[in-house]
Amino acid sequence: MINRLVEKIKKTGAPIVVGLDPMLKYIPDQVKEKAYREYGETLEGAAEAVWQFNKGIVDCIYDLVPAVKPQIAMYEQFGIEGLKAFQKTVDYCKEKGLVVIGDVKRGDIGSTSEAYAVGHLGKVQVGSQEYAGFDEDFITVNPYLGSDGVKPFVEVCKKEKKGIFVLVKTSNPSSGEFQDRLVDGRPLYEAVGEKVAEWGADHMGDDYSYVGAVVGATYPEMGKVLRKIMPKAYILVPGYGAQGGKGKDLVHFFNADGLGAIVNSSRGIIAAYGQEQYARFGAEHFGDAARAAVEDMKADIAGALGFPFAVS
Amino acid sequence: MINRLVEKIKKTGAPIVVGLDPMLKYIPDQVKEKAYREYGETLEGAAEAVWQFNKGIVDCIYDLVPAVKPQIAMYEQFGIEGLKAFQKTVDYCKEKGLVVIGDVKRGDIGSTSEAYAVGHLGKVQVGSQEYAGFDEDFITVNPYLGSDGVKPFVEVCKKEKKGIFVLVKTSNPSSGEFQDRLVDGRPLYEAVGEKVAEWGADHMGDDYSYVGAVVGATYPEMGKVLRKIMPKAYILVPGYGAQGGKGKDLVHFFNADGLGAIVNSSRGIIAAYGQEQYARFGAEHFGDAARAAVEDMKADIAGALGFPFAVS
Repeated sequence: MINRLVEKIKKTGAPIVVGLDPMLKYIPDQVKEKAYREYGETLEGAAEAVWQFNKGIVDCIYDLVPAVKPQIAMYEQFGIEGLKAFQKTVDYCKEKGLVVIGDVKRGDIGSTSEAYAVGHLGKVQVGSQEYAGFDEDFITVNPYLGSDGVKPFVEVCKKEKKGIFVLVKTSNPSSGEFQDRLVDGRPLYEAVGEKVAEWGADHMGDDYSYVGAVVGATYPEMGKVLRKIMPKAYILVPGYGAQGGKGKDLVHFFNADGLGAIVNSSRGIIAAYGQEQYARFGAEHFGDAARAAVEDMKADIAGALGFPFAVS
Repeated sequence: MINRLVEKIKKTGAPIVVGLDPMLKYIPDQVKEKAYREYGETLEGAAEAVWQFNKGIVDCIYDLVPAVKPQIAMYEQFGIEGLKAFQKTVDYCKEKGLVVIGDVKRGDIGSTSEAYAVGHLGKVQVGSQEYAGFDEDFITVNPYLGSDGVKPFVEVCKKEKKGIFVLVKTSNPSSGEFQDRLVDGRPLYEAVGEKVAEWGADHMGDDYSYVGAVVGATYPEMGKVLRKIMPKAYILVPGYGAQGGKGKDLVHFFNADGLGAIVNSSRGIIAAYGQEQYARFGAEHFGDAARAAVEDMKADIAGALGFPFAVS
């Protein structure tokens, strides 16, 4: 799956992942109203609005980008109905040929991490039968519990040829509170980055590992250091756009081959229709606004990287 | 809810939470067979087995203990059907008067943590209506992202009078890999513990805070230090029993008032029927075996604490 992600990035020339984080406030009124007319102002109605919104976005961007990243919390907040919309979104994006990164940030002690891994990436045994649960291609993993909380994910990934992105340095303002604390004179995120390289060495694709890392665009200097510590890890970079990261901040997240990083934008794309820059599309054409925002993001990144990116 | 938990602990004399982590291998054959006869060897069948097993356990222990802790991964591995069984279990335990601690270990950047908080502890707004999603009483939270990842949970807790347990020092063998790293000459878990005390000061019940901590029974010396750092935090102590923690290891997790900690046991109780000690019950009476295991655990802890615990 990491090989497929790399291939798709090369083919699209867009090291971009679209974050499908459909908070209700980002969903145009006409989409919500239609869903509520059918299902009422219920959890089912909310889930329907989420799903229709996602579909509208995906239909307009699936040929431009290699991957999407649904944030499960935005679905889980609506309980079972929301999670059904998550499932539907994952399935639909895969049908459209997109790589799906489930942003689930799971992580627990060994046997429990194994259950999460099975439910999101692998297959669960029921009697003599095997079933896939949510079946994403990649998921994000929280490393706070250490190796025995992460390795069960790697084991399932090996079996399924899937991958994970481990939180190393997150994009939020207070990420430094623990992640930047100095251990043996170096920040904790470097220690985590070293472990990512170690876990990843155990499960390599052609050029990159199935074990990647999350490093926020909002911390470009740290990205530079981490790029060197984990040369074979794909870096998933959140924080571009709405959170403040810009194209020029991204340069050091990439390797000299122009690969090694994939940049996420969520509301900057899915809610583009609400920005002045894309207001001409109107709320009805939110998908077209998202497409224009993806194209602008692609140009911003290509400009910043300073070389023609797409060699399909 | 923290006041209610404390009250129930006093009343039952059992600072015990039963972990409802129903891996299929713990579920007696007759329960699985019945479920598979009805629903086939499907995700629905697995979910039915899980639910019937939980119900059998809960019916036999609900009057003995204050709380249960379903581990959501064990449900999530069966996808949507599994999560329906989680929901059913939460609802049923609440009906039975138990405090429900959802062991979900969620944690993300601000707006995303808010969505998780709303989905598990609060209410989500859909148009003019409000709905509770999974509606646990407490959940566990991962602090790796720092204050702005934790505070949205605290905010929802304030509104709903609910609580969280923040991972500080987990029970697993490799928890020390990051948690024990020295920052400013002290282990990281102490820094996290200090933050727990700080977050908790902002949301106090009568004697204890709504913001508690998770500290593994497998690390009693660290429990002793953390008890002092977070005097007002209730400590949720996993790792007793199957993971190796014993009654005598628990002493320092408690305060002088005999309160301040609640000890989890999962497979030691729910799969007691498979242990030699409780084999006399047979797999058919797995609930009675669980009840006997709870009573033994209660005696072990009371003996270790060295004072008559129950003053109802």
